Amino acid sequence: METKELLYEGKAKQLFKTEDPDVLLLRYKDQATAFDGLKKEDISGKGEFNNAIAALFFKVLAENGVESHFIRQLNEREMLVKNVSIIPVEVVIRNIAAGSMAKRLGIEEGVVLKKPIKEFFLKDDDLHDPLLNYDHVDMLDLATPEEVEGMEQIALQVNDILRDYLKKLNIILVDFKLEFGRYKGQIVLADEVSPDTCRFWDATTGEKLDKDRFRRDMGGLLEAYGEVLNRLKGEK
Amino acid sequence: METKELLYEGKAKQLFKTEDPDVLLLRYKDQATAFDGLKKEDISGKGEFNNAIAALFFKVLAENGVESHFIRQLNEREMLVKNVSIIPVEVVIRNIAAGSMAKRLGIEEGVVLKKPIKEFFLKDDDLHDPLLNYDHVDMLDLATPEEVEGMEQIALQVNDILRDYLKKLNIILVDFKLEFGRYKGQIVLADEVSPDTCRFWDATTGEKLDKDRFRRDMGGLLEAYGEVLNRLKGEK
Repeated sequence: METKELLYEGKAKQLFKTEDPDVLLLRYKDQATAFDGLKKEDISGKGEFNNAIAALFFKVLAENGVESHFIRQLNEREMLVKNVSIIPVEVVIRNIAAGSMAKRLGIEEGVVLKKPIKEFFLKDDDLHDPLLNYDHVDMLDLATPEEVEGMEQIALQVNDILRDYLKKLNIILVDFKLEFGRYKGQIVLADEVSPDTCRFWDATTGEKLDKDRFRRDMGGLLEAYGEVLNRLKGEK
Repeated sequence: METKELLYEGKAKQLFKTEDPDVLLLRYKDQATAFDGLKKEDISGKGEFNNAIAALFFKVLAENGVESHFIRQLNEREMLVKNVSIIPVEVVIRNIAAGSMAKRLGIEEGVVLKKPIKEFFLKDDDLHDPLLNYDHVDMLDLATPEEVEGMEQIALQVNDILRDYLKKLNIILVDFKLEFGRYKGQIVLADEVSPDTCRFWDATTGEKLDKDRFRRDMGGLLEAYGEVLNRLKGEK
């Protein structure tokens, strides 16, 4: 693991090759970004929180039957993951109106949705991640109808599992974004599940425990991520 | 019909009550608008062209089994229509990439799509007519799943009929926007079918014969609409 070859660098993570072609090393960066990368800032320690939180979430999901690319946590900032081929579609599930959907459709933030909403977005910063319907996914040859169905089914399952799990920690799962990859002919949950990719609200105070603290210049991002990690570890 | 009570005024049309509660009078205005009404201009004679063209299209559709709100043309600028309750969803069918979809998804205008693309938009200028997926339509209680299916099925049928019909007139049907209404428990095609709501390209020259001439400041809008009407009337 000493001489690592960088395979891909995203806004918040780096992926390195390992000796095993089926395995990659995922390193969480400290960089926080928003608005398709227009706003960015280094927040020392964010990467370590996301690594720890994502590892815990992936374990909870695996215990509940949802496989992901996660293999094991390597150290404070790195995990080993399966070498999946990422599908460039972001799958969003929403339980409560917030963020881009609230703005786009003129719904007040905080409105509880009568059932979870599924949204697909093209993973393309230059185009500002446009919303996609089924016909667009097909037209752009992004995924087969079977893969679309698989991603939706897994995303809703993740929602059920994490919503119940977080409820016990007095956290409301408002919404989240997932990415999927192809691995040995299967659709597998990939990327990360963390306060960078989810909206978490404290169930009592409504306090935001996620990247909205950075997007909205609220401050206290590290404290919020630390709070989520503490609750996940049962240390509170 | 002398003292008409205005029921609704849109950007390009007015709707008046008649003595029959099931029947409205639809009057086509000369106003051309684009970009959610930000750009507007009176183009004297446009209303008469759209009235004549829409009447002809509605007749062609009826002859091919697609019912609409159209009852009959009344005079050069007005038609009688059924008093439908409009569903605030714009249904767009695209055969060739152009306009908002080309821009949104980074596809070059003119690319022929492997099959027709269906898109739903919320009819809301203030929100800039946002794209909707099935979950959004359901969440906003805009239409039932059966109504959505009905609108899609009729829209694709309209596409088949008009594409073939226009091909014989050497016109390519690039895309079009439909609106639907509820009438006595049925989903009925409403609004208009005209160069204001469709993209028509001359099949030989590629010349634009639709409202893009206004949107893109190309000039020659009336001549283009007149050309479409002449071809529909078989006068060319």
